[in-house]
Amino acid sequence: MSNLLSRIQQPSDLKQLSDKQLNELAAEIRKFLLKTVAQTGGHLASNLGVVELTLALHTVFDSPIDQIIWDVGHQSYIHKMLTGRFSRFETLRQYNGLSGFPKPEESVHDAFGTGHSSTSISAAIGLAKARDLMGENNKVVAVIGDGSLTGGMAFEALNHLGHLQTDLIIVLNDNEMSISKNVGALSRYLTRLRLNPKLRRLKADVQDILQRIPRLGQATVRTLEKLEDSIRFLVTPGMLFEELGIAYFGPVDGHNISDIKFHLKQASIHKGPVLIHVLTTKGKGYELAEKNPQHFHGTGPFEITNGKKIGGRVSTSYTEVFAKTIVELARENSKILAITAAMTDGTGLINFAKEFPERFFDVGIAEEHAVTLAAGFAKKGFRPVVAVYSTFLQRAYDQIVHDVCLQKLPVLFMLDRAGLVGPDGPTHHGVFDLSYLRHIPNMVIMAPKDGRELRDMLATALAYNGPAAIRYPKRDGLKPVAEDVPQPLPFGRSELIREGEKIALIGVGSMVEPALEAALRLQKYGINCTVVNARFVKPLDEELILRLAESHPNIVTIEENVIAGGFGSAVLEFLVMKGVRVEKFKMLGLPDQFVTHGATEILLEKHGLSVEGICRAVREMVLPTVGIRAGV
Amino acid sequence: MSNLLSRIQQPSDLKQLSDKQLNELAAEIRKFLLKTVAQTGGHLASNLGVVELTLALHTVFDSPIDQIIWDVGHQSYIHKMLTGRFSRFETLRQYNGLSGFPKPEESVHDAFGTGHSSTSISAAIGLAKARDLMGENNKVVAVIGDGSLTGGMAFEALNHLGHLQTDLIIVLNDNEMSISKNVGALSRYLTRLRLNPKLRRLKADVQDILQRIPRLGQATVRTLEKLEDSIRFLVTPGMLFEELGIAYFGPVDGHNISDIKFHLKQASIHKGPVLIHVLTTKGKGYELAEKNPQHFHGTGPFEITNGKKIGGRVSTSYTEVFAKTIVELARENSKILAITAAMTDGTGLINFAKEFPERFFDVGIAEEHAVTLAAGFAKKGFRPVVAVYSTFLQRAYDQIVHDVCLQKLPVLFMLDRAGLVGPDGPTHHGVFDLSYLRHIPNMVIMAPKDGRELRDMLATALAYNGPAAIRYPKRDGLKPVAEDVPQPLPFGRSELIREGEKIALIGVGSMVEPALEAALRLQKYGINCTVVNARFVKPLDEELILRLAESHPNIVTIEENVIAGGFGSAVLEFLVMKGVRVEKFKMLGLPDQFVTHGATEILLEKHGLSVEGICRAVREMVLPTVGIRAGV
Repeated sequence: MSNLLSRIQQPSDLKQLSDKQLNELAAEIRKFLLKTVAQTGGHLASNLGVVELTLALHTVFDSPIDQIIWDVGHQSYIHKMLTGRFSRFETLRQYNGLSGFPKPEESVHDAFGTGHSSTSISAAIGLAKARDLMGENNKVVAVIGDGSLTGGMAFEALNHLGHLQTDLIIVLNDNEMSISKNVGALSRYLTRLRLNPKLRRLKADVQDILQRIPRLGQATVRTLEKLEDSIRFLVTPGMLFEELGIAYFGPVDGHNISDIKFHLKQASIHKGPVLIHVLTTKGKGYELAEKNPQHFHGTGPFEITNGKKIGGRVSTSYTEVFAKTIVELARENSKILAITAAMTDGTGLINFAKEFPERFFDVGIAEEHAVTLAAGFAKKGFRPVVAVYSTFLQRAYDQIVHDVCLQKLPVLFMLDRAGLVGPDGPTHHGVFDLSYLRHIPNMVIMAPKDGRELRDMLATALAYNGPAAIRYPKRDGLKPVAEDVPQPLPFGRSELIREGEKIALIGVGSMVEPALEAALRLQKYGINCTVVNARFVKPLDEELILRLAESHPNIVTIEENVIAGGFGSAVLEFLVMKGVRVEKFKMLGLPDQFVTHGATEILLEKHGLSVEGICRAVREMVLPTVGIRAGV
Repeated sequence: MSNLLSRIQQPSDLKQLSDKQLNELAAEIRKFLLKTVAQTGGHLASNLGVVELTLALHTVFDSPIDQIIWDVGHQSYIHKMLTGRFSRFETLRQYNGLSGFPKPEESVHDAFGTGHSSTSISAAIGLAKARDLMGENNKVVAVIGDGSLTGGMAFEALNHLGHLQTDLIIVLNDNEMSISKNVGALSRYLTRLRLNPKLRRLKADVQDILQRIPRLGQATVRTLEKLEDSIRFLVTPGMLFEELGIAYFGPVDGHNISDIKFHLKQASIHKGPVLIHVLTTKGKGYELAEKNPQHFHGTGPFEITNGKKIGGRVSTSYTEVFAKTIVELARENSKILAITAAMTDGTGLINFAKEFPERFFDVGIAEEHAVTLAAGFAKKGFRPVVAVYSTFLQRAYDQIVHDVCLQKLPVLFMLDRAGLVGPDGPTHHGVFDLSYLRHIPNMVIMAPKDGRELRDMLATALAYNGPAAIRYPKRDGLKPVAEDVPQPLPFGRSELIREGEKIALIGVGSMVEPALEAALRLQKYGINCTVVNARFVKPLDEELILRLAESHPNIVTIEENVIAGGFGSAVLEFLVMKGVRVEKFKMLGLPDQFVTHGATEILLEKHGLSVEGICRAVREMVLPTVGIRAGV
């Protein structure tokens, strides 16, 4: 195999390659991708699936003049390799390295930043109509997966696009799954289309049959009626899209470069919006990933030969604790239901789904629907648990306000990946949840300091008759969690972990442990801090906070959330409303800027949310005039 | 006409009525509705459109055992009259009176609270699956308009419903418009269905044609190909729904009670989800409303004979100022675009749409798409202005974070109806925007104190190269606004309106005028307040705030927003981060609870956001020990 890949400096270099060479390049890319992601971790299966598609796109179109928007964007690795970033590819998802998602700041070939699902068609319409208004004639292409198509805003965009009739190409990358196995009526519909890969020929066959009708007469009519279901598909495959005014091409074999190229060229001369239905196999070319694409969706470093994780974890994650506890609780309480938006695996609901299939609902990538569905269940006396990543619940902010909290319905939100998520970066950090949930009336917010507390908080929330959220980070390394029955915690009460004097550190969730460690370290230097585990961000433990404020001239709040509108802000508001003054008050948290990608430890340290950072903050507070670091 | 209506104490009373009597009742209801809404104001046209539909629903089904969910819910007036609330109907939308939307606290017949669009199917699925799990067999009915169906979450729900195949009845109330004239491919699709009101007969006709095929042979095939488009509709009308696994019945004449009853009965014995397509006329029975339904969507009191508003306004509203200014600015800057989510009229974009049809985009009830579409435009150098009600922008919180602010794209959000909206109540108050926008990095937030300032803020935002929001209330009574060219304001600077001493009142937008009036009133009692117009909620005018904090021991912030995470909270956070202490700090704003419906003045007064309330707060601050009201 020649070294074609390193010679591709920009997408135009592809144009000189024959289809045979493109196929060689595809093989080379797969090999390189597998080798690299096995070392760095990242999204593997989805990228293996789009090697030929990406090559075809960049051969047919002229990026950056033509604009390609990658929905979600975790499948943009090949695109990155072909657009001048091959040499930096090993820095992927690392601090100061390439982003794992399209990022306009990184390259002009990244036409629009993505990360969350189902945004590409909306953005593409904006780019396409802007082009029309400017009298330009470049192509705009949205590449969207079948999973992302279940997100409501994708439908909103299709509805608008069918109305506008502007030139726009949607490449539906159909790999029969989003992250989990795809669900929903749309999925079944696509499957029916897929099952007829030779639709055009079948259509011709039907015409033959129709020609033979003269010999059949009356009986034919009845036959035709029976064939009704088949006929409507044969006459116009992709009717669902055609009904919306969007031409349907396909299905196309997504691993046949010349086929894809042919259809992309057809699409590019088509007037008006067109959808090309491309069938790909997630994990293509790496047998282990083809067989178990979910496992290789987002992966850490692994052994190529057997797929085993390198440096595998020996400890427990919050997700695992939740996974186990919710099943235990559900066995005792038949009203408990679990709802996920295409994240059965990521949120830890696999065992729940297996044990309670009737009480488990995967709604597709549809957080808005998930939340209001939960509200409906709660209205009838059930206890729905919506397990969702903090960043994705942003999609359902209005539903939380309007459908859950306004009616004070007992929906429990389990916010996984709250706080910094590391390599996925700014599109995925869950650092706004305390701020966007705290100001909603009737909402209860908790954050556990460890796995044991997560168990008890689940029991607490389920014993409470109203909306609640528990947020916990993407982090493992938890101590082994005792197996005894989860116990409800005193409602609205914080936990006084350590009694000191003058300085009170109030930590939220993930920041309790570093606060305690900081206190221990500071103790060695004669600074004796009180440490509190907030437990509840809402309602606040007003009694304890007042007591702390009276007895401690220095208060420090610590949270893995933006400072603006977060927990520290809540404590401040409360103290001010009570007319209580604190000598010195410090809020540690994330600043008013988007946090980049990179290892979580690096990012936490950078923003002072580490043991060292907390020590520094305390030191500055109590020794304001000492400029030299005193080793604390 | 007999007095049937007053004899309906509960929906079961309808069951004894013949269709003839139901029609008489319909006429009586229309008369009563028109008379009452002409006096109280409210949603007229949509309710006139569903008189027969509501009667049929309550005749066929047994509420509250059977559950009816009204999407949006502004069309639930007849439902309220028939479910024990007729005698209180004159209190509609008034403080302590009936809500203008379904509200479970008000009646067991209100199966689920609504107000925002497109939630009904999701909630209905929750109620229906809960029923299945409990082994019950009641009916669940979602009544949704064609406009609401364009909202993405409705599609998410349809996708899930088609997959679940639970028994659920969707009544598609198709009046060919949402609030504005409907847009989108879906609308066109429904129109095509409507144009074939005798679909079933046509289907029979086609069968006849097919029977004649023997005589036509080869030529027929070609004819059939030409008829392709017709055939697929004739074979299965409502294919778009059928494709998703939802049976389609209709279209049905929505003003023919026996027809609707027949179809509802059919639907109620159907296994699995079914959609009944009901055609209604908005404003039915009141000619003026039929001709101009938008005018009578939400209306104040009016003369029945000529439709003219009673007590019409003599002054200007913020909406009108925006409407005028955006057109002026757009004439000068061809990059300015306007985007609305089915609110062309309400947000004041009618003239813009007329003058710049190419630069105007009504996307349907699709706030999520609207925002990311705007981001796409902004990426290509345009200046999209998204005009939207504060409460509805909640739907697009994630898109603001992820698509606009993360990429720092210059999208301008014009947040109309920010603050309390009065009679529409808690589902529509725009009292969270400062809190849900303030913590998003890169966002700029302004609030004008009057119409003139709104003009200048538009110029300010459009001169700024990043995301910005301007929030202004649903309020008129503005002083006449000068016509001179809008001027950008000093960026991030507040306006010092009045220099006093010891007490600084910092008002946001709508609260500046009452703050100033309060200062004038307090002056008479020897209290000399400084008054500041914040102008910018983000970024804060840090310099001025520091100056105020140094020179004023008492600071009061005043905002028509929840206190939690709002402007006062921002000022506090800033002062604390700067290590500045203020003797006394008071935040006036809305408490941590949902605010009921009623006249805005009553609600503002109740929460201390009035001249009197501000005076009271200041008095308590400076005269804390004086318990007797000193006439201030």
